[in-house]
Formats: sequence, structure tokens, C-alpha cells
Amino acid sequence: MIVNMSEGATEEQIQHVIERIKECGFQAHVIRGVERTIIGAVGNQGRRGELEALQAAPGVAALVPISQPFKLVGRELRKDRTVVDVGGVKIGGEHYVVIAGPCSVETRSQILEAARGVRRAGAHLLRGGAYKPRTSPYDFQGLGVEALEFLREAREETGLPIVTEVMSTEDVSLVSEYADMLQVGARNMQNFPLLRRLAKAERPVLLKRGPSATVKEWLLAAEYLLSGGNTNVVLCERGIKGFDPELRNTFDLAAIALAKEYTHLPIIADPSHGTGRRSVIAAMSRAAIAAGADGLMVEVHPCPERALSDGQQSLDLPTFTKLMEEMDQPARTPATVNA
Amino acid sequence: MIVNMSEGATEEQIQHVIERIKECGFQAHVIRGVERTIIGAVGNQGRRGELEALQAAPGVAALVPISQPFKLVGRELRKDRTVVDVGGVKIGGEHYVVIAGPCSVETRSQILEAARGVRRAGAHLLRGGAYKPRTSPYDFQGLGVEALEFLREAREETGLPIVTEVMSTEDVSLVSEYADMLQVGARNMQNFPLLRRLAKAERPVLLKRGPSATVKEWLLAAEYLLSGGNTNVVLCERGIKGFDPELRNTFDLAAIALAKEYTHLPIIADPSHGTGRRSVIAAMSRAAIAAGADGLMVEVHPCPERALSDGQQSLDLPTFTKLMEEMDQPARTPATVNA
Amino acid sequence: MIVNMSEGATEEQIQHVIERIKECGFQAHVIRGVERTIIGAVGNQGRRGELEALQAAPGVAALVPISQPFKLVGRELRKDRTVVDVGGVKIGGEHYVVIAGPCSVETRSQILEAARGVRRAGAHLLRGGAYKPRTSPYDFQGLGVEALEFLREAREETGLPIVTEVMSTEDVSLVSEYADMLQVGARNMQNFPLLRRLAKAERPVLLKRGPSATVKEWLLAAEYLLSGGNTNVVLCERGIKGFDPELRNTFDLAAIALAKEYTHLPIIADPSHGTGRRSVIAAMSRAAIAAGADGLMVEVHPCPERALSDGQQSLDLPTFTKLMEEMDQPARTPATVNA
Amino acid sequence: MIVNMSEGATEEQIQHVIERIKECGFQAHVIRGVERTIIGAVGNQGRRGELEALQAAPGVAALVPISQPFKLVGRELRKDRTVVDVGGVKIGGEHYVVIAGPCSVETRSQILEAARGVRRAGAHLLRGGAYKPRTSPYDFQGLGVEALEFLREAREETGLPIVTEVMSTEDVSLVSEYADMLQVGARNMQNFPLLRRLAKAERPVLLKRGPSATVKEWLLAAEYLLSGGNTNVVLCERGIKGFDPELRNTFDLAAIALAKEYTHLPIIADPSHGTGRRSVIAAMSRAAIAAGADGLMVEVHPCPERALSDGQQSLDLPTFTKLMEEMDQPARTPATVNA
Repeated sequence: MIVNMSEGATEEQIQHVIERIKECGFQAHVIRGVERTIIGAVGNQGRRGELEALQAAPGVAALVPISQPFKLVGRELRKDRTVVDVGGVKIGGEHYVVIAGPCSVETRSQILEAARGVRRAGAHLLRGGAYKPRTSPYDFQGLGVEALEFLREAREETGLPIVTEVMSTEDVSLVSEYADMLQVGARNMQNFPLLRRLAKAERPVLLKRGPSATVKEWLLAAEYLLSGGNTNVVLCERGIKGFDPELRNTFDLAAIALAKEYTHLPIIADPSHGTGRRSVIAAMSRAAIAAGADGLMVEVHPCPERALSDGQQSLDLPTFTKLMEEMDQPARTPATVNA
Repeated sequence: MIVNMSEGATEEQIQHVIERIKECGFQAHVIRGVERTIIGAVGNQGRRGELEALQAAPGVAALVPISQPFKLVGRELRKDRTVVDVGGVKIGGEHYVVIAGPCSVETRSQILEAARGVRRAGAHLLRGGAYKPRTSPYDFQGLGVEALEFLREAREETGLPIVTEVMSTEDVSLVSEYADMLQVGARNMQNFPLLRRLAKAERPVLLKRGPSATVKEWLLAAEYLLSGGNTNVVLCERGIKGFDPELRNTFDLAAIALAKEYTHLPIIADPSHGTGRRSVIAAMSRAAIAAGADGLMVEVHPCPERALSDGQQSLDLPTFTKLMEEMDQPARTPATVNA
Repeated sequence: MIVNMSEGATEEQIQHVIERIKECGFQAHVIRGVERTIIGAVGNQGRRGELEALQAAPGVAALVPISQPFKLVGRELRKDRTVVDVGGVKIGGEHYVVIAGPCSVETRSQILEAARGVRRAGAHLLRGGAYKPRTSPYDFQGLGVEALEFLREAREETGLPIVTEVMSTEDVSLVSEYADMLQVGARNMQNFPLLRRLAKAERPVLLKRGPSATVKEWLLAAEYLLSGGNTNVVLCERGIKGFDPELRNTFDLAAIALAKEYTHLPIIADPSHGTGRRSVIAAMSRAAIAAGADGLMVEVHPCPERALSDGQQSLDLPTFTKLMEEMDQPARTPATVNA
Repeated sequence: MIVNMSEGATEEQIQHVIERIKECGFQAHVIRGVERTIIGAVGNQGRRGELEALQAAPGVAALVPISQPFKLVGRELRKDRTVVDVGGVKIGGEHYVVIAGPCSVETRSQILEAARGVRRAGAHLLRGGAYKPRTSPYDFQGLGVEALEFLREAREETGLPIVTEVMSTEDVSLVSEYADMLQVGARNMQNFPLLRRLAKAERPVLLKRGPSATVKEWLLAAEYLLSGGNTNVVLCERGIKGFDPELRNTFDLAAIALAKEYTHLPIIADPSHGTGRRSVIAAMSRAAIAAGADGLMVEVHPCPERALSDGQQSLDLPTFTKLMEEMDQPARTPATVNA
């Protein structure tokens, strides 16, 4: 941590900061510049949290953190990349995986039809919401345990492991009985009681990025899971809040490339929520893999225009099948150089 | 709801949309323009949620909502403004109120000192966190029930009603025994299980705006509380995520003015989180009241530079006392007109 | 400037950075921490611009600027606040001023009616666009020199000094003949040839903040004017791009409070563009003054629903008159403390 | 255009809006709903600009545009995609192109070395700034005409056509003598006098997206060029302002996919400005092509750590060469399905 003193800071204020740094367990290194003094707090035995309050000390202009705030998710401590096994499917390895299925489980036939269809098209895991976080209390809130039963049946028939969202600490045990992977939705990325409970769950966790979370905040949310004991964590970029109302979110693919520098955890991308617009999902799926994503999560519905949620961003089965076929077609080749 | 058909939409696609509108319980009104056709879905018996999936129907360019999605929080149903009574203090009435206190309850003496100080300066309610949502798992997470005991003691001594955050459904009963008002933090604004539980709580709720929530999303979160049975809800603007790293958030005062047009609920403002910078809190407190806020929530700590959280944005007691004294000093007067 | 070396930086890389710092004219101070080394570049004779490229040197994790990048606009060099005289009206002094008038000058009678009306209501300066920056080439682009003639007539009749936008270096001389203050629109905040030309103009400049400009970028744009020779500069906050489509912009009043800490220049606020919504302009005008603004710029049109631009955010004359009357009514008083 | 009346709108207000719609040259279609009335303005002979002011008419809640505001850039009028020829290199055709070179032309040897290097690596066009828009007046502002001479020499030696920025109407003729393509920088996207001048230039234009421009605003800026007579326009996505300070901008690849639905113009991507971070440029280059970009613009400098601008985001020649070699390596293949 660097303490940047203000230009008019007095010697007394500088000494006060030096003492506080020592009190918090760090060493203080002072650089006296022409215009202002800066003080480095060095050490790894200190209490960083307390140091931050120095921003409120007299004569302090700003604090500048130097080291990363996360530990277990970082690549310093663990050099090789984590591979997460979800019911036999490996996420984070040499190949990318595709999680597909409807936003919500609506009926038995809907989820079975979806499961068969995405299986046939080549998907590796099945998604489907039993408990749905909905902006309005008047919207469909999910079928709950009935949906979990249908998902289990879909897995039995298709062999696809199940990924489904858990919204509440109270549901973790129940959902774990049915699901192969527990999803934390974007709105719950910083629901810390839920993260602490999932750190003790026996299932891998898919942690979506919150719509206004920085990459560091996202990794610190994952740190709750790892520090609590669950190392089977996959991150998912699903778009951040943006200013252009034409797309539901701004799909932040560079955050995937950046986060992969910082963490050993696998990262997948959700172009359905990331854009909210069916017509661009194929292009953005290819772009996400090119950006380094370890997989995709795509919303697929047998009849999007009758979906009880997210119809506008769901692919129908023929479109999803076409997407899977074209995922690996060679990209456009470069123009020959003007010789 | 208006369905905006794409330019090339066929007659068959138009008819299909008309039929779906009727199936969902609405009447369809068609306007055939020169370039494109639009179809209005009219009625109040229909299922709006299902209608939204029409965005996925062939030939549909976009759906445009016409009416507001919220009901009970809106001013159409309730013309007069709600006044919420918190332990005898009225929020939303003729006068504004000030909630003050430290971010976290750290020790018995810290919270008692803070309570006495803010009481003396003229605050109406005491804030203090017992359960703290912290970005990093390595930061101070709150004292829990011990903090609640200290808060109770502070109330007994000062008479100030207590506002404190509840993060988990499991804590609602316990916290309700101690607190006069239950706060939902910004990161939990769309924690729907928590909102559903608080809708059944016997305490008023302070609902903070999420950092990327639109005004409508915020009001729909409040709708969860009202539709579940709790009408004692106060909203709190606390800053949204912005692009300028110099301030912690962008303090969105116009959202208060806008939200007051839409809802009868009281709205207060939190300039401490809204800016994250002590030096601008006094100015932004006055600005918030001028913008129409029904009150303020201000972080005050006896010794900000030793605070275990939010020290950089906490006022010390002398500064808070000065703020309270100067809140109602006449604003600058206008220049005389150049005659 | 602090150079934060990456954890794995070699001694050779550290030495290389030290040498480059010296080459650029600074002294290098090294702090060797447990995990990483940081190097402070100290001095005021160095070439800061060249130093920034060190971010590309091997072993460098990040560069952290310590001192502010602006000089002449800053309060270090000039402690007392600048007061700008615009045709006899002082901006930045003890009292606030109000600039009012239509977005565009549309006809002679429209601008004269507007000028008389805002004068009567108590405005201090008249605004009106002769050259209009419009998002679409098919929208009204302003009357040009004809509008300038009408503005001159309006000044002669009402005595109100004229503020009008200049979009092009080529128009500066001409517009200076008619106007008392030259406005740089938000979209031109970083039009550097225009700023360089205005630095040589004989009129004060009103510099609007760009919709995605940080406070530092805004102040650096003003630095172009001051360093080029024009010290009569007034800044204007007019809203930044935000994610909620309900308001045209996010009106960033805390930026005014922050910018006033950094600069001695006067700052006014434009609630018309800042919100884009007539119904909240009165509240946000009072809030802006409470936040510390030195004045307001308000769009007023004799008949907003027939305005050729910005009708939705223009006040009619009776509403503007009411705003002016109520600007200084006492804000709501605080509740009495629960005794 | 749809006029959405407020719930309490009177019959008189409704009639007034109907009359205004007719006055503006449109037909009015009224839909009377249960809660509110909406009025469609239909026709293509009307004056849309004037209609927008109806937002200010009494009883009007909101205006909702139905048709796109742009014309010549749109795909309705021109179904096949535009291919722009820049000195013999085709942008927008079957293959993608790469524009590479330093941010600024700094010396003769620097630009010649860069030109040779990027040519050898397979780039199709050379970039290099002669006139530089810089946030601070104290930063390197470009060599001007001397740089243009060096660029000409580089083209003569390597055969690479030249792309360089023009910042001012006054420079258009001169720069056109040297450059094969004129770049409009992001900060000038809505510099309308410059756009109008470039509409008459004899060179193709590269129009960068402004950091806070919506896709529609970007296309309307291009509409200035086409409607003024220059149809040789290439768009360039270069990142929008975002909230995470770790990357310079948020690289918005979905905007490319969306814009390609709306316009027939070619679109390229600039991962250097789009991210501001060398380490992610290769991944984001591949992602941009996968998202549908017609080409790339990449900053390359012989010695990034000594660059006078943008060193932190410039690739050195070996890294750029590697990027070019790996652009078309097969993406990761999908995992085999769990059978």
C-alpha cells in the first residue's frame, strides 16, 4: 500500500501516518518528493483492512493499493489452471464445453424436449432454472422442486449433467440432491451468506459476474468460496450494465482475457444474457471462445416466443444446432498483402 | 404493450402476433404505417409476462412497454405520500430526518460514543452494522449479535431508534428483536428470498438502490415488499457505478426527483456511500435535501482513521456537528440583475 | 509517479526502470517489499509524458500517478477563486447567476420573447444556439449568422449578455463579434484545435463537460485554454452518460463539489441537459446551487412543444418564472429530535 | 413515432396532440387502452424533428420512436455490403485486413522501422499519427506535416497505404495529399463541421466510435458523411467508457455484430484502444474477427517503452508478428459429448 500525502501535509501528519503503518504491522518507507511525500507500507504480516482507514487521516491525499487483494483464486499461489469436473464433464481443460437449455423449467415436456435437442446438437451440460430471480414479483418465479424432478428425469434420459441456480442458503441442500453444479446468479454475486454456504456445498459452483462488478470484485467473490473450502469454482461473464439501450448488457469479453491472467479458475461466457438479442448470439459465442473462454452458456427453448422468461434471447433448437455446427468453421482469412 | 413489427414482416407474421396477443388475454389494435406495422396490446386482464416473449416471434422488431410495471408502490393507486414511523420518528413527512452512525459497530465504547455524539448534533436515528457485507472475505465481517446488544444499549441511553442491515433470511427474526428498522444493502436489492422474508417482518425496511439498478428495477424491488405485506418501506439512493475512479460512486440525485414522481414511498439519500469522499459530504447532503430527499444517512465515526470499514468516507463528530449546524443556512443568493 | 513492478520482476528489469527514470529527468527511489518492488520517480524537471511509456517496459505491472496532471487550472498555483466577467455579469463571485434561453434561436420573435421573459423572471444572461450540433444530419442545424443578429437585438433590448455555442475554429471571430461568452459544447470538450483557437479569443469561454469525461479530463481541457492564454473560463456540468434510459443523462453534482476542490475556475450546472426532463429541473436547479455551483444554465422556450430542438427539456416562461421565485425558499427544515 | 399519453390525459390534450401530428405532416392513429391512450404518427412525408417536441405537450408521458433515424447508412436502402478501396486494399470484402503502426509518428527511422516490420508481418495498411489529440496540453502533440512526409516515404518503400488522423477542417486538404484514408478520432465522432468537410473530401474516411456513443449515434455520425457525398466510410469500434479502471475502455464487440445488422458499411475493431493493455490484444484481435469485424487496427511500435504516446498498449514487432501468425490458428475444439 502506498500512502500519498497531500501537498500541504505537515511533518507531524507524516509522522502520524508512519506510526499508524507500524501499528498495523507493516514497515514504513518514506519518499520525499519535490511537491509531496509518499509512504510505502511494506510487509505481509500486517492488517491491510485497518490500513485502509488511513485515507481518513489528516494530510493524506489518497491510498494506492499495490498488491492484489485476492489470494487463493490468484495465479501466484497456484500456477496450473484448475479443471472442474461436473458430472464427468471437465470445464477448464483443453476443450471448451457448452451448457445449454431454457432459462426456466416450465413443464416436463418443455425441459425434456430441450434436453434432447441440445444433447443432439452437441451440448455437454443442461441448464434450466427451478428457482428464478425475477425483477418483478408478478413474473413467473419458477416451479421449484417440481422443476428439479423434471431436470433429474432429463439427466437420466440424456446423460447431461445439470446446472441450475440456487438463490437461497435454505435451498442449497435440496438443490444439491438434484443438480451437478450450483449456479450463483449475477444479482447474487455478492450475497455473502449464500457464498459462505456454497463454500461448504458438495457441488461445484458456477459464479456469474454481477452487472456492475469489477474483475477484482468478481474474483473476491470467488475467494469467499475458495477460502471457505470449495475449490470447484467456474466463473461466468454475462454482461455488464451499459449505456446503450439496444442491447440488454455490454458483453465484456476483454474481462475474460484479463481475469484469466489473474486467476487459475475456468471462465465461461453467457452470450444470451451478455447481449439479450438472439441475432448476435452466434457471433458472440465464437468471439467468446476466441477471447479465451473455457465454455459457453446458451439459452435454448423449444418455442422461444412462448417462454415464460427470457424468450427474446433464447435460441430455438434449429438455430442452436446451426450455431453448434458453425462454431468451429474457419474464421475469415486475412486479405493477401498488396504486393 | 406495443409490438413493433420489422419492415419486412409478412401478413402471416402480423396475424400470428395478433392471435398470440389475444391468447394472452389482451385486445390487439393494428396500425399499418408506410414502412411498418405496429400492434398495440390493450387491456388489463392479460398476462404481461407471457406477452414479452413475443419479442422472439418471427417478424417482430421490438416490444415497447407503455404502462409502468409496478403497482402498489406507484402513485396511481395511492395519491398521498407514505409516512413511515420508525420508533417514533416519522420519515416522509414535512421534515427531513438524519440517520447517522458508524459503518460497523466495532466496540461497545465506539458505538456509545458515536450514538451520544450524533444525538447531540441533532441526528434522529442511529445506524451501525452488525452484519457487514464485505467485498473481501479477509475484511472485518461484523460482530453479529454482540453488536446488536451494543446497539440496544445505545438506544436505551440516547433514545435514538436503531437502523441496521440484515443480510440473510435466517437473521431477520433475531435482528428484528433489536432493531427499529431493517436495512437491505445495495448488493442485496435484488436478493428476492430476503425481500420476500422482509415482506413478512414486523419492522419497517430501508431499501438501498443497487449500484446498477434503474429506477424501475429499484421500485420493483420495493414492490416485492409491498405485495408481500410490508408497506413500511423507505428507499435510499446511495450512488450508482460510474466511470470516474475519483469518487466511489456517482451520486444520482435526479433519480430521487424522478422516483418521487413515480412512488408514494419516502426516499432518503446516503452521501457517504454516494460519493465515498468525506470532503464533499456536506455539500451533497444539502444538495440531496434540495433535490427532494426525505432524509439523509451519514456515516459518522469517533475516529475515522481507525475505522474497520469505510473510514475514508466517515465524518468525525466535530465535522458531523458542523454539517448539522450548516444544513439549513441560506443557500447563496442570486446575483442582482444587471439593470 | 510510482512504478509498481510485477512480482516476478528481475533485478535487471528493476535496474532498467531506474535508468529510464533518470533518463527522463527524474530521481528514482526504490522500495523493496516482501512480494514486490516499487520505484518512485521524484522531481519536477522531468518529462512525465515519456515516463508513462514505462508501462510497456518488461517487469512493470502498473504506473501510478501521484501528482495532478493539470497546473494552471489547479488551486496549488492560484489560491483565490477566479471570477469571470461576462458583459458585466460576474460568474464565480458571492452570488450565483442564471443563464436562460432557448436551445436554438429559431425566429426573431421567438428569441425576443424568450429574452424578455427570462429577463423579467430574473435571469442574468441569455443563451440561444446559432450553430447547433445535432446527432442527425436531418435535424435543424441552426440559423447561423441570422441567429447572431437576432441575439444582438435581444441584448440591445434586454441588456442581457449573450452566451452562444461556437462549433468551429472558422466561426470564432464572427461569433465573437456578437456574443459575450463563447460556449464549447459537450461533444467538443476535447476538440483540441477549437480549444487552441479559443485560447486566443477575446471572449470568456464556457466549457461544458463531455458526457464521458472524468473530472481530470475536463480540467485538462480547460488547461488547453489557460495555457494558451485565455484565463476567463467557466466550467459547466451537464450530465454524463448513464445506464438508466429514463433520464437523458446522469446529472453528476458531486463532480462539481470535487472539481471545486481542484480548480479555482467557476463551475455552473445545466439541469436541462443534465436530466433531459422538465419535471425535475426545478429540484435539480436547487440541488446544483446547494452542491456549490456558481450558477445555472436553463433551457427556456416560449412554446416548448414547438421547439425545433430540446423541447422535451425546455421550460415555458411561467414555469421558469416560478422556478426563479422558488429558488431561494427555505429548504425543508429538519425534524425535531425525538426527546 | 408513438405518442404515449399519460394516464390522466384529458380529451382536449389528446385532440391537441392529434392536431399537432397532422400539422407536422403525419397521420394520427389513436388506440384507447384501459389505462391510457396512445397515438401513432404514421407517414413518411412528415417532419420528424418537429414531432419530437411533442414530448413537451401537456398530457404526453413519452414519445417512442419506431423507425430508425438513419437512412443512407442503413441496409433498407442498400442491401449489399459496401467495400471500401483504400489505395488498392479492399475493406469489407471476403477477407479481413490489418492496419498497423505506431500511435504517433515520432521520427523518420521510427516510422520506417515500424512500416517495414508490420509489412513483413503481413499488415495491409500503415497507421501513424501526425496530428495527435492529447488529453493534456503538455503531452506530445504530433509532428504535423513532417510526419506526413515520413509517412509518404514509408508508403513509397513498403507499398502500404497510409491511414492517419485529421483533427481539423483546415487540415483536410493537406492531409489528403499524403494519406490514403482519413481517420476521425473517437473524440471527434460528433465534430460535425469536421464531418461535413470530410463528406466533401476525396479520401475514404475511418470513423471511430465515440467513447459514450450509442450504436445509433455512431451510425448517424456516418450519415453526415454519406448524406454529404462521401460513401467510402469504414466504422471502427475502439472501446467505450466503462467502470472498471483496470482496462482503459470496455471493448464492445457485440456493438459490431449489432451495427452490421443495421448498416452496409464495413466495420473494423481497434483492440489497442479498446483495452489499453498489451497482454490481451492478441486474444481480443481474434475475438473481434470472430464477432464479424472486417479488420483490425493495432498499435505497433519498434520500442513501446519509449513511445511518446500509448506505449502501454503498443505491441513490439516480434509480438505483432506472432499475433499475425496465430490469428488463424484453429480455435479450441469442443469437448466430446459425454456418451
